[in-house]
Amino acid sequence: MKRTVQEIAEAVGAKVEGKAQQSLSGVADPESASPSDLIYIASAKHLDRAKASRAGCVLLPLGLDLPGKTILRSDNPKLAFAAAAALLLEQHPIAVGVHPSAVISPKARLAPGVAVGAFAVIQDDVEIGAGTQIGTACVIGGGSCLGEHCRLYSRVAVYPGARLGNRVILHSGVVVGSDGFGYVRGPQGNVKFPQLGGLEIGDDVEIGANTTIDRGSLGITRIARGVKIDNLVQVGHNVEIGENTIIAAQTGISGSCRIGKNVLIGGQVGIADGCTIEDGAVLGAQAGIPTGKIIRAGQTVWGTPARPLDKFKQQYGWLTREAAKHRRHKNEE
Amino acid sequence: MKRTVQEIAEAVGAKVEGKAQQSLSGVADPESASPSDLIYIASAKHLDRAKASRAGCVLLPLGLDLPGKTILRSDNPKLAFAAAAALLLEQHPIAVGVHPSAVISPKARLAPGVAVGAFAVIQDDVEIGAGTQIGTACVIGGGSCLGEHCRLYSRVAVYPGARLGNRVILHSGVVVGSDGFGYVRGPQGNVKFPQLGGLEIGDDVEIGANTTIDRGSLGITRIARGVKIDNLVQVGHNVEIGENTIIAAQTGISGSCRIGKNVLIGGQVGIADGCTIEDGAVLGAQAGIPTGKIIRAGQTVWGTPARPLDKFKQQYGWLTREAAKHRRHKNEE
Amino acid sequence: MKRTVQEIAEAVGAKVEGKAQQSLSGVADPESASPSDLIYIASAKHLDRAKASRAGCVLLPLGLDLPGKTILRSDNPKLAFAAAAALLLEQHPIAVGVHPSAVISPKARLAPGVAVGAFAVIQDDVEIGAGTQIGTACVIGGGSCLGEHCRLYSRVAVYPGARLGNRVILHSGVVVGSDGFGYVRGPQGNVKFPQLGGLEIGDDVEIGANTTIDRGSLGITRIARGVKIDNLVQVGHNVEIGENTIIAAQTGISGSCRIGKNVLIGGQVGIADGCTIEDGAVLGAQAGIPTGKIIRAGQTVWGTPARPLDKFKQQYGWLTREAAKHRRHKNEE
Repeated sequence: MKRTVQEIAEAVGAKVEGKAQQSLSGVADPESASPSDLIYIASAKHLDRAKASRAGCVLLPLGLDLPGKTILRSDNPKLAFAAAAALLLEQHPIAVGVHPSAVISPKARLAPGVAVGAFAVIQDDVEIGAGTQIGTACVIGGGSCLGEHCRLYSRVAVYPGARLGNRVILHSGVVVGSDGFGYVRGPQGNVKFPQLGGLEIGDDVEIGANTTIDRGSLGITRIARGVKIDNLVQVGHNVEIGENTIIAAQTGISGSCRIGKNVLIGGQVGIADGCTIEDGAVLGAQAGIPTGKIIRAGQTVWGTPARPLDKFKQQYGWLTREAAKHRRHKNEE
Repeated sequence: MKRTVQEIAEAVGAKVEGKAQQSLSGVADPESASPSDLIYIASAKHLDRAKASRAGCVLLPLGLDLPGKTILRSDNPKLAFAAAAALLLEQHPIAVGVHPSAVISPKARLAPGVAVGAFAVIQDDVEIGAGTQIGTACVIGGGSCLGEHCRLYSRVAVYPGARLGNRVILHSGVVVGSDGFGYVRGPQGNVKFPQLGGLEIGDDVEIGANTTIDRGSLGITRIARGVKIDNLVQVGHNVEIGENTIIAAQTGISGSCRIGKNVLIGGQVGIADGCTIEDGAVLGAQAGIPTGKIIRAGQTVWGTPARPLDKFKQQYGWLTREAAKHRRHKNEE
Repeated sequence: MKRTVQEIAEAVGAKVEGKAQQSLSGVADPESASPSDLIYIASAKHLDRAKASRAGCVLLPLGLDLPGKTILRSDNPKLAFAAAAALLLEQHPIAVGVHPSAVISPKARLAPGVAVGAFAVIQDDVEIGAGTQIGTACVIGGGSCLGEHCRLYSRVAVYPGARLGNRVILHSGVVVGSDGFGYVRGPQGNVKFPQLGGLEIGDDVEIGANTTIDRGSLGITRIARGVKIDNLVQVGHNVEIGENTIIAAQTGISGSCRIGKNVLIGGQVGIADGCTIEDGAVLGAQAGIPTGKIIRAGQTVWGTPARPLDKFKQQYGWLTREAAKHRRHKNEE
């Protein structure tokens, strides 16, 4: 979609320095940009890349200069760049129309403009909002409810009864609403605890490829609006995740955890059952949070068992120095 | 399915105190229960939740009282609740009949009552036992053998030649029988070691969404009866897992490990090649078991490299105290 | 495929001792071998297994003897065995011909001999090289390009625009070319950073079940020839992986990492953003490489944060001894 520099400036809150009527049609990195592309530079370190670029327009922070280029001046060029990209880029359609091979229950209710790919299956009593695209070979279980303008890539499985908000993006291989993992040991072996609860996913949630999210056992698993989840993440039954929390790849969240808003969770973090992670906490990659632990609002932790980052660093530094002393002594003997 | 309190009592070994002929039709947690639901309370801590509940009947341990409610008295209310749920809840059918779009080899042998969902593929010489349900878009590879009353959710891949017992549950996205990971370094690069062994999965095994289980390389990968495996777990080639062992999400078990019976494996545990985990051992979440290590029967271990839990705690406690002393000294200087 | 011992010897660079014209038709482990099978023994420890075997021919290293057996003498029996297996074993076909249910765009270009399984979808402008087999329910996104003799097992998702070399093997559930994980925090929540870059996978790459590989954000994610990736691995956007590197299960590689050639990465390793792992480095299982870290060529590291293996061992040994002393003192008091 073509936009003028001026239009982008207004949309993203930036100030034009140069040719306001110049036309832009894409975004790129400096090296691959064409004259119709927008690029961004976040710091002086990358200024030379922008100078050498063929890009038609550069998003720049205050205090940097690029003579001869059209500049969009912004407090936060990366944020402005992301917002501009959403305007300039056309989304690749996941499905167009309803493919004749799709199997759609006559009891499902699809709003106008819903697109369904080949070999998708939409079971009884499913509701799908306007503009939602269901990719190839997706399976939408009975009684599920999807909002408007969702994008389900190929091969997504939505178990029966799940509820998704608007503009939810599920990447290929995602499974949502699967049974939680709960058994009770009995004299004849493990007896399955009932897994009949719900799953609710809020607006603007994005979930990465092959991630799995379990339904509640008796209660409900809840992912609030704006949560972003990377690939291969596991979210257990009855977990609640607050707004705008970000969860990197391969993290696992055990049953009944409460995760606050704006939490940052690194990759491969493990959170045991019943933990509370308060708003704005940061869990460093591979951290392990033991059962029932509370991580306070805004705290940054690392390690297994997780502890405050500065404590981790101090302990690790002390261990490193003491052990090294011992090695030196040994060598001197 | 409706049952009287008396019928449930007899089935789960509980004693009725109250209206034995009252009808129950479901299970719930105390907050969402209706008068036809059964709930359970495991300890006095939750007694008030049960008092406030509309539930028709409460499974209670010895020593607790709930005047005015119909009680099912049990030594182990949670176990009794799980057993009662299996009687009261109707399982959501994964497939009903054989969908006309399914591609079933004329050389496959399906017992009476096998159900096959849309877009499922059943290849040559597959055998499937009575009452087994194959979900949408499952692929059952040639020569595989599935027992009776199995439940394969949508999009399960069974590689050729796998053997599954009765009542096996495979959740969406599960891959069983894939090639193990084995290469031999040669002067021209990595040469694939043959991966032509078998895979055997026993009765009553349940495997979570997007979990992967490799076939043997030359030998056989064996999952014994009653094993429960959570989502996103990896089981390597030639692994053997004993009866009723429980494996939480995102754990990885490398090739040729021997895991005993009734082992408990936490989430994100990593077990390197050729380890032996004896019966009843407990591996704490994120533990790392180095190559060839033996964990003795009944032992609980944690950390990487894994060590006995009390040793881990003592070491960690000592490190924490010593490092903190050093920090105090520094602050005092 | 039947071969004489002599043919195998010539192909794998081994020397025959015994019946050179004997016919072989398979490989096996010693216990399950039949007289037409080849087995191998890597060390004296397993000699008795070979003696007791019915195998027709044994690959043996220098210095070991097995009177009465036909021997193939080799410096590296395991490598020779793997090479022989590639000659003796017929690959199970993933697809034969083009299944009538497959949905293939008239704008896709399939070379002669391409096979496509049931319910596969091949979108516009896809190019597929000769002899490539596309399994059941695979989805090949628009504009993708696959080389010759690739093998895509069932349910693989190739996002639009991905480029795969020759003889690439993708196991069931693999997702390649999915969006990377990048958001910019703004006052209204997380704004998605554009994920429109490319994905290039070289010749002879094999990728395990349910592994996910993201496309570049603005640049390109590159997996060089000969790389072998196990199950449930995550490779982030803009990562580059050099030739013949091996990556075990459940490892996660964050955005913009540069991994060299011939690197060995154990299971569940986590590599944070922007790391450089030089050629021939070895990352022990569960190691955690912090953001931006450089691991030097040939170095072996372990732990989180990762450090040289001998340093890790020395530190751990010291900690173990010191903590144990303290425990003894306490017990003596």
